[in-house]
Amino acid sequence: MSLLTVGTVAFDSIETPFGKVDKVIGGAATYILWAASYFNRDLQLVSIIGDDWPNEEIMALQQRGVDTRGLQIKEGEKSFFWSGRYHDNMNQRDTLVTDLNVLADFDPALPEGYQNTPYVMLGNLTPEIQMAVIKQMEQRPKLIALDTMNFWMDVAMESLLQVIKEIDVLIINDEEARQLSGEYSLMKSALKIFTLGPKYLVIKKGEHGALLFHEHDVFFAPALPLLEVKDPTGAGDTFAGGFMGYIAESDDVSFQNMKRALIYGSAMASFCVEEFSLDRLQGVTEQELDDRVGQFKRLVHFDI
Amino acid sequence: MSLLTVGTVAFDSIETPFGKVDKVIGGAATYILWAASYFNRDLQLVSIIGDDWPNEEIMALQQRGVDTRGLQIKEGEKSFFWSGRYHDNMNQRDTLVTDLNVLADFDPALPEGYQNTPYVMLGNLTPEIQMAVIKQMEQRPKLIALDTMNFWMDVAMESLLQVIKEIDVLIINDEEARQLSGEYSLMKSALKIFTLGPKYLVIKKGEHGALLFHEHDVFFAPALPLLEVKDPTGAGDTFAGGFMGYIAESDDVSFQNMKRALIYGSAMASFCVEEFSLDRLQGVTEQELDDRVGQFKRLVHFDI
Repeated sequence: MSLLTVGTVAFDSIETPFGKVDKVIGGAATYILWAASYFNRDLQLVSIIGDDWPNEEIMALQQRGVDTRGLQIKEGEKSFFWSGRYHDNMNQRDTLVTDLNVLADFDPALPEGYQNTPYVMLGNLTPEIQMAVIKQMEQRPKLIALDTMNFWMDVAMESLLQVIKEIDVLIINDEEARQLSGEYSLMKSALKIFTLGPKYLVIKKGEHGALLFHEHDVFFAPALPLLEVKDPTGAGDTFAGGFMGYIAESDDVSFQNMKRALIYGSAMASFCVEEFSLDRLQGVTEQELDDRVGQFKRLVHFDI
Repeated sequence: MSLLTVGTVAFDSIETPFGKVDKVIGGAATYILWAASYFNRDLQLVSIIGDDWPNEEIMALQQRGVDTRGLQIKEGEKSFFWSGRYHDNMNQRDTLVTDLNVLADFDPALPEGYQNTPYVMLGNLTPEIQMAVIKQMEQRPKLIALDTMNFWMDVAMESLLQVIKEIDVLIINDEEARQLSGEYSLMKSALKIFTLGPKYLVIKKGEHGALLFHEHDVFFAPALPLLEVKDPTGAGDTFAGGFMGYIAESDDVSFQNMKRALIYGSAMASFCVEEFSLDRLQGVTEQELDDRVGQFKRLVHFDI
């Protein structure tokens, strides 16, 4: 089934202890779609760019099954630009530059055919834009997932709570889950967040894996210990893209299937961090993906 | 088979966001032995206390199968005392007081019958004391595990490297693995640490679980998301105690069996943190332990 994604399409300049890149392809929607495309070729994009974004990258997305009619291109304007520097421990980063550019006046408009899409992934953006997308849906999607960040909790908590009320799966990191719930125990955070609307909570913990909560069930997908981690940028989006791409393709929202989706999301994220930008994510083979899922199995399998 | 443990037997005063306790039972060896005693009742203790340590606690250890002939009692002196305060995030703590007391002149002496013990757990102590225990062994134990901390890397790296050369399993946290190896990737840390002597590396990540490395194999035991975490003190020792207690009892040092041991160690640690001191750890039933291991299985089981 088709998956609609709203999110940024952007340029990034990134510095990590392992290298530095300038004005490379980035953006939450870009990572989400590339990851999702390994499972699902019926994808829709809602975003905005300037005329500086390379046309061949749009064509590359189209070749991965992405309908780009919802991608607005503003002539004479610049695409969203983000620049950041990671600390030595790679779990923390400083934002150096955030140039909203075209994003400042982004008013998402769903083209014909997007309004009945059964699976929706709302990438990290202002809660107002996320809500505007939900409002344009003609029928309630089977599953709406939303990614957000602490910044929106700090500056737009009320709008965020409104949109969170409308969704099924909230995807945030552990610090954000604690901030949103006011609870230190992630188990308690989950139970509290369920009272805000979502029926599922995914807590991303970066190099420490990810947790999926539903009612009183909990599932944990580890992160694979890797020899090389060059750049964590986009890992969370890639994870969400693999997760939602897999669910939409299988059209199965059972907890059992979401567990599989969490593993596939984690596998895609493990590729993402091995290189800067989309350098690794654009060239994963089916065999490599199978091998990596096998590594996840062996990583946690025990016999008691 | 029997397990020899050297480590502190101490009093702790602890403050966490969830409470405060004063001069309660603590110490690395105490936690190790209690955890190990759920699997193994052939235990030996090498440590030192003053005449202030409660006799009933020594008797309680004896009832759990601990040979306490190696526990020196110094009349007119005080037991080791540690006091600490945990930050809101529970992953960090400040040491408020460290009174070495009897520990200042501790010269471990192995009583008759300890010198041929096949399994040895060297709790976190000065590398010199850890080495003194190894030197008193008459035949090379089947498996020697060693726990240490960043403090000894800062002040006694040379002695630490000497004792690390003599052991089989090094048990440290992720930050310490990075400090010891100079590598950020835990996978690379493991490969580097293997060149220092150990054939196995266990990396404890607290609420994020634990990794076991051996040659090019890696296994991950998650930490159970808990509703209540009151006090993390002793969790690492409890984990090590469950791990080594299980291995010694099964007398099986295969990687497959160590995976099981890692899960049992994690299960014991999950009980430890639910209350202060030994309050939870002293009263775990067989059924509770089985149930908890079942929770670990469900936590990571997926079907791909």
